Amino acid sequence: MNEAFSFRLIASDGAARRGEIITPHGAVQTPAFMPVGTQATVKGLAPEDVRATGAEIVLGNTYHLMLRPGPERIAALGGLHKFMNWPPPILTDSGGFQVMSLSKLRKLTEQGVTFRSHLDGAIVDLTPERAIEIQALLGADISMQLDECLKLPATREEIERAMQLSLRWGERSKRAFESKARTGYALFGIVQGGDDLGLRIASARALVDVGFNGYAIGGLAVGEPQVVMLKIVAEVAPVLPASHPRYLMGVGTPHDVLEAVARGIDMFDCVLPTRNGRHGMVFSRFGSINLSNARHAADPRPLDEQSNHPAALIYSRAYLHHLTKANEILGQVLLSTINLAYYQSLMAGMRAAIATGRFADFHAATMAGWEQGDISAM
Amino acid sequence: MNEAFSFRLIASDGAARRGEIITPHGAVQTPAFMPVGTQATVKGLAPEDVRATGAEIVLGNTYHLMLRPGPERIAALGGLHKFMNWPPPILTDSGGFQVMSLSKLRKLTEQGVTFRSHLDGAIVDLTPERAIEIQALLGADISMQLDECLKLPATREEIERAMQLSLRWGERSKRAFESKARTGYALFGIVQGGDDLGLRIASARALVDVGFNGYAIGGLAVGEPQVVMLKIVAEVAPVLPASHPRYLMGVGTPHDVLEAVARGIDMFDCVLPTRNGRHGMVFSRFGSINLSNARHAADPRPLDEQSNHPAALIYSRAYLHHLTKANEILGQVLLSTINLAYYQSLMAGMRAAIATGRFADFHAATMAGWEQGDISAM
Repeated sequence: MNEAFSFRLIASDGAARRGEIITPHGAVQTPAFMPVGTQATVKGLAPEDVRATGAEIVLGNTYHLMLRPGPERIAALGGLHKFMNWPPPILTDSGGFQVMSLSKLRKLTEQGVTFRSHLDGAIVDLTPERAIEIQALLGADISMQLDECLKLPATREEIERAMQLSLRWGERSKRAFESKARTGYALFGIVQGGDDLGLRIASARALVDVGFNGYAIGGLAVGEPQVVMLKIVAEVAPVLPASHPRYLMGVGTPHDVLEAVARGIDMFDCVLPTRNGRHGMVFSRFGSINLSNARHAADPRPLDEQSNHPAALIYSRAYLHHLTKANEILGQVLLSTINLAYYQSLMAGMRAAIATGRFADFHAATMAGWEQGDISAM
Repeated sequence: MNEAFSFRLIASDGAARRGEIITPHGAVQTPAFMPVGTQATVKGLAPEDVRATGAEIVLGNTYHLMLRPGPERIAALGGLHKFMNWPPPILTDSGGFQVMSLSKLRKLTEQGVTFRSHLDGAIVDLTPERAIEIQALLGADISMQLDECLKLPATREEIERAMQLSLRWGERSKRAFESKARTGYALFGIVQGGDDLGLRIASARALVDVGFNGYAIGGLAVGEPQVVMLKIVAEVAPVLPASHPRYLMGVGTPHDVLEAVARGIDMFDCVLPTRNGRHGMVFSRFGSINLSNARHAADPRPLDEQSNHPAALIYSRAYLHHLTKANEILGQVLLSTINLAYYQSLMAGMRAAIATGRFADFHAATMAGWEQGDISAM
């Protein structure tokens, strides 16, 4: 496999899109959900188990991997795909988001950002050029430009300054990426602009002028109301070219994903299915379920007898409750797996619905299930 | 499946024995190593992954399961096999060992032991009869008598008192077991007597007079030198009937297991492969290896290119080192799996060697590998 990156729009249904991304490591059907492989592992799952949930692409975190084990080491070991034994496509973020959320003593200049590692206190420089170099060392099929992720609320002035800086970093990222001549690999730009619609649209237009293989919307799902996020998505998506994939970074709950697909988004990543799974929470056709709740203690039913994943079929709720209460690793692993499988089945359902012009029906039926809620045992 | 319990001695080589145990849930080839499923899960592994390491039987802990989720609940849910989705045989201990090691405020009488739960402080009574009842509720293929596990060092008087109490509890356990009329299921007696050979032999003879389906040696591997343990095993094993399986409880390292098989033991259980795996330590043909050691950080080699388990073949030492340093769940899971697979391959090697009269050669070759030690990367 070494096909050039491409995106093909297969069908549309309203603003919702059914597409296919081709990468050097294989194809990805969209709308796609990317499990997060923070430290070169989707927490708790072996790669074949990630694949078995239906995932076709995972996300790797540049910030974490640059600090440990280091991109040069991963490159020497054959790249991230080989290192983590995940042959399918990988998208890596640029590290910008974690620099803001995890590191200390950040110093931001036009050149880039300097920070202290949260692991050992080492001083680290990250520039747009270094972010691209790291992602090339990792061997990412899709690289992301470095951007400045602002904490909200912020003044319009601050938001505009950060958005403009991100734009200039986008241009530098593109130059750096092109200098690597990684034929067939892709670079995405990132729309910023906080909660200011005008700045968001200006950012999107300017990025399209620069020209990327795909466009992400960053800096959302950071605490703002869902309605604000969806409004921005709805306004920004049409500004982006229909011929390119659109990626809403760090989003979100199943409902966030459903609504963002309805507004024209093709790609998502989020830690929620694994993080919540490690804490006894599952997402299901009937909304979210807290397995540590005592009502499950004697319940012999599986989590979802209609699931297409064995983990949701084989084990009783009583057993999953027990593992959760006993804080057993297997409970964390099974619930993470069940959540990832549910997200993937949701994506598959949306893809099929869009392809056949039934997205509105699928949307309504999915919402009805979530609103109905989980049915307790007698 | 509901065959009556039986043991068949297939071959002997010196004192080492190759046999087969038949239980209501299937056959177990001996010498056998039983992974420990403390809280109705072998820590970190799904049941199919335990099976894939080669395990044919697991151990369940009566103490843990009686406190959470409770034997009546497990029985209502169809028994332990169904609860944890492990159809093959299960042996349960009697709870005596954990009462001594984990609980507080123990009060020992002729009748039984009263203790405070380490989970919620509840006062719990455990008698020989209740221990048998719990194991019947769990549905164990092999139940163990309740015994008093003494902490060493102790006076000869104390050791003899505890041994005699354990004998009387053994008789009561047998009466209680027979009253349950669990056709085809098995009850094992437990030899006690501390580090006193005379008391050990007296205990063994008295147990044989009572008559059990198999005989365990308890109260060893609790800190005494290996040479003391092996001396007791060597002296006690010949006192036990050749027609019945012999189980050395809570043992041990691969070397302990190898030497105990050489002295006539058929069954083992131990938390070492999973506990050590969760802390970056693996057992291998070349001795134990600490994956957190920096020498593995850039090593592209698999842990053991001759392993018959994918986890030891697919991932590089560098990746396993990374997961260990990053304290990732997947590292704990993979190293636990690799350790269990190594134990099972060691058992399989011993079984094949005994069957063909090559046990001495196998013993020497295995020892030579461990003594050679791990070979570092260039």
